[in-house]
Amino acid sequence: MHVNPLQTIMNPKSIVYLGGSNSLSTIGTAQLVTILKSGYQGRIYPIHRKEKEVIGLKAYPNISSLNKPVDLAVLVIPGKAVPAVLDECGRAGIKHAIIITAGYGETGKNGKKAQEDLIRIAQKYGIRFLGPNCIGIINSRIGLNTTWFPEKYSPGHVGIISQSGSYVTQTLNYFEKIGMGISQAISIGNQADIDMVDCLEYLGRDDQTRSIALYIEGIKRPVDFLKVAREITAKKSIIAVSAGGTEAGARANASHTGSMGSPDKLYRGLFQQAGILRANDVTELFDWSLALSSQPLPKGKSFAVLTNSGGPGSSMADAAERSGLHIPIFSSKVRNKIKAMIPSAASSVNPVDVTMNYDLGLIFKKLPNLILNLKEIDGMLFYGIFGPVHFKDKIAMTGNTNGLTQDLLEEAVEKICIEFCNLPKKSNKPIFCASFTGREDSAVALIQDHGIPVYPTPERAVSAMAALWEYRKIKNRYKLRPSGGNNGNH
Amino acid sequence: MHVNPLQTIMNPKSIVYLGGSNSLSTIGTAQLVTILKSGYQGRIYPIHRKEKEVIGLKAYPNISSLNKPVDLAVLVIPGKAVPAVLDECGRAGIKHAIIITAGYGETGKNGKKAQEDLIRIAQKYGIRFLGPNCIGIINSRIGLNTTWFPEKYSPGHVGIISQSGSYVTQTLNYFEKIGMGISQAISIGNQADIDMVDCLEYLGRDDQTRSIALYIEGIKRPVDFLKVAREITAKKSIIAVSAGGTEAGARANASHTGSMGSPDKLYRGLFQQAGILRANDVTELFDWSLALSSQPLPKGKSFAVLTNSGGPGSSMADAAERSGLHIPIFSSKVRNKIKAMIPSAASSVNPVDVTMNYDLGLIFKKLPNLILNLKEIDGMLFYGIFGPVHFKDKIAMTGNTNGLTQDLLEEAVEKICIEFCNLPKKSNKPIFCASFTGREDSAVALIQDHGIPVYPTPERAVSAMAALWEYRKIKNRYKLRPSGGNNGNH
Repeated sequence: MHVNPLQTIMNPKSIVYLGGSNSLSTIGTAQLVTILKSGYQGRIYPIHRKEKEVIGLKAYPNISSLNKPVDLAVLVIPGKAVPAVLDECGRAGIKHAIIITAGYGETGKNGKKAQEDLIRIAQKYGIRFLGPNCIGIINSRIGLNTTWFPEKYSPGHVGIISQSGSYVTQTLNYFEKIGMGISQAISIGNQADIDMVDCLEYLGRDDQTRSIALYIEGIKRPVDFLKVAREITAKKSIIAVSAGGTEAGARANASHTGSMGSPDKLYRGLFQQAGILRANDVTELFDWSLALSSQPLPKGKSFAVLTNSGGPGSSMADAAERSGLHIPIFSSKVRNKIKAMIPSAASSVNPVDVTMNYDLGLIFKKLPNLILNLKEIDGMLFYGIFGPVHFKDKIAMTGNTNGLTQDLLEEAVEKICIEFCNLPKKSNKPIFCASFTGREDSAVALIQDHGIPVYPTPERAVSAMAALWEYRKIKNRYKLRPSGGNNGNH
Repeated sequence: MHVNPLQTIMNPKSIVYLGGSNSLSTIGTAQLVTILKSGYQGRIYPIHRKEKEVIGLKAYPNISSLNKPVDLAVLVIPGKAVPAVLDECGRAGIKHAIIITAGYGETGKNGKKAQEDLIRIAQKYGIRFLGPNCIGIINSRIGLNTTWFPEKYSPGHVGIISQSGSYVTQTLNYFEKIGMGISQAISIGNQADIDMVDCLEYLGRDDQTRSIALYIEGIKRPVDFLKVAREITAKKSIIAVSAGGTEAGARANASHTGSMGSPDKLYRGLFQQAGILRANDVTELFDWSLALSSQPLPKGKSFAVLTNSGGPGSSMADAAERSGLHIPIFSSKVRNKIKAMIPSAASSVNPVDVTMNYDLGLIFKKLPNLILNLKEIDGMLFYGIFGPVHFKDKIAMTGNTNGLTQDLLEEAVEKICIEFCNLPKKSNKPIFCASFTGREDSAVALIQDHGIPVYPTPERAVSAMAALWEYRKIKNRYKLRPSGGNNGNH
């Protein structure tokens, strides 16, 4: 197995940083601030012609004066300075680089020529590099974030490979809100050297990465892409969104990363053969990646809906059947068991609707246990998280709360939510939740942080379940062809 | 024009409240807390057999002892007590009621009979009522919220009529996050008396309501529904989602509000004839309602994309063309004008991509002004809001910020964002924005609060624009038939 250059780029012990100063007027400084904020424990050596210190770090006038072995160079400098610096890296024995600088293949003839120059210099010294025209990388395992955006993110199991820097960096707040943690994220830019196939291969072997999200504007090596993707999707899921299917999309891509777009049907065929789930938009891309990184796959497509509100229950049931999933009617035996537990106006059929009801033990424990033990049910869609935030005013304003205090409520909710989150592992069946209240409800935050996704609408929870079922069918496909040459080492 | 019973129900000067106590153990108490928290300035008279005061309000042992004219009775009491209380209301001359209590038409034969009893009592006294099995109403104009959920919401221009209480109450936090304000919201429950058609007629005449969102499980009076909806959609938009199209959806509805679902194609035909925009899920329902309540309609379907990040720009362009909108290439004259303003690596074609660039004047003012002045452009899709929150760490950690402080930045952003929000009115062309950072970025909050929707993904902004174009086509349809009898008084 050859050594993937990303092994060092994503896990550097030391970084030489070009483009940082003590003034916020350059983007390089802003990105250096992110690295310093991100918790990275390796050495960072800023290069600056005049300053002795850059943002509190000892600075060096040039790379050769550094006189230390360094794993990675990060370049956020003007285009005309890049060739000389890359050459200097080569002479200093630095074998890996991230070139953030833009103005290459994406800008026309002169840019393309400049990009070829970079490749030539890199090849001369055996340097492998990401970019140019990328925004860098994030590795949650070592707390390294080289991008402009220093926002908080959570370590998790989604790996991201993107031709747009935006989708691995500007999205960090968005990821937090849906409770999605990331393992590693790579902005590949113009792919002048390291490309999407290298990244796929690298994340395919990363144990922390359980699903891979791709944002694609154009594929450089379709045959290798197909081969590597198939090896991966036999074991872990890949979800992709591509933005080059229309004329306007292709035009935007050309000026963005210099990619040649392909007609939509080519992507469709390629993804299908590769076992890649195709998302229609970035909402689905991230929702599905989160789903597949966190929950066990269903064995079949029959699901239960458990809710404390009729509307969201109806929405879930309807959306599920529209997505090709099945919401079976429970047998009369099961319905009688459920009826004995729920209020008289409630429904036992499936959806099970307990109606507005604050018996936490019923909705988080008794009913889920009963439902997930049914052989005919492959997983559960859940609506009914109403945590402490909703009771604050009510407890404060009523004199007599029968001993209920905010603290007691929070304690009870915490205990029962954590128990609830053990159910997928215990039953080996997936659960997805929906709540219109986000992490400001501590019950939502708890459930997300203990591994069950909570989506902002009922239909998005259903869409996540449908993605799991799609991937189960893809995996079954591989099982049927165990002798195939491209199926990888599963 | 007959007097719509909702005129009083939505605007009561006084309320007699049945079901509140000083203990949180009943839902009635919780809903009374919401009314008290909501800022309602009318009189509230709780009825309680024993208590002299309920949550600080003087309580009365029964309705007759109240001996005052009252506009509205709100009933959150056990089902068996409802008939006698409704009768008491009738005898006391109270002509309007909201019956929250469940366990009627949605629960089978006995429930249906009980519901008929309510109708009989109401008719005897000429009482008009909402419910049963509903969650109540919100009227932002008078700060009245009778539902269980006391969450903050903003007054605005979306009216909501829902057969699920969840979608007018549990969604309040969700509305805040997308910056959607509501005018009035009505949970109609089983529609035993007042039904969706009455509500449509009422909100159709409400000036504060600029678009109407419907959640439908079943339509009781399809002919009247069509007539009233057509009168409205000639002037303001209606957006509907229906959850009864599949077998499981219909089953869920039957136990939820006792509605008989209709096959999906019946809804499709009805909505089309009525000029109603059909949403696929609640995400679209609320995104589109917000869009149509806040922005001018485009004259054509040619749009510009302005971005500071390539990926979201490509996503917008691609999604727009997939939705039937057009992202035209700018003329070379226009491109030269734009080129003179933007960095050399940036793109002037359309999408206009200024690349990572913090010239606020360029992206919020100069380019939008130039673009919206183009005759060939009907509106703008915008990605590029990076407000003060993103600079906090950077300003704090760099010694020399060239005089930039967090305060100065916030001041500058506020000024330019408010100017930006005047552009749709000035140009009579719509703008929608997308940002992966929500209201924690004060620039996002400012833009939302000054009338331009900011959606959480690029594709959702595009979907909002496509909804505007759909509604423009519906309005054009009416213009072509000015003599039609059903077109209302436009």
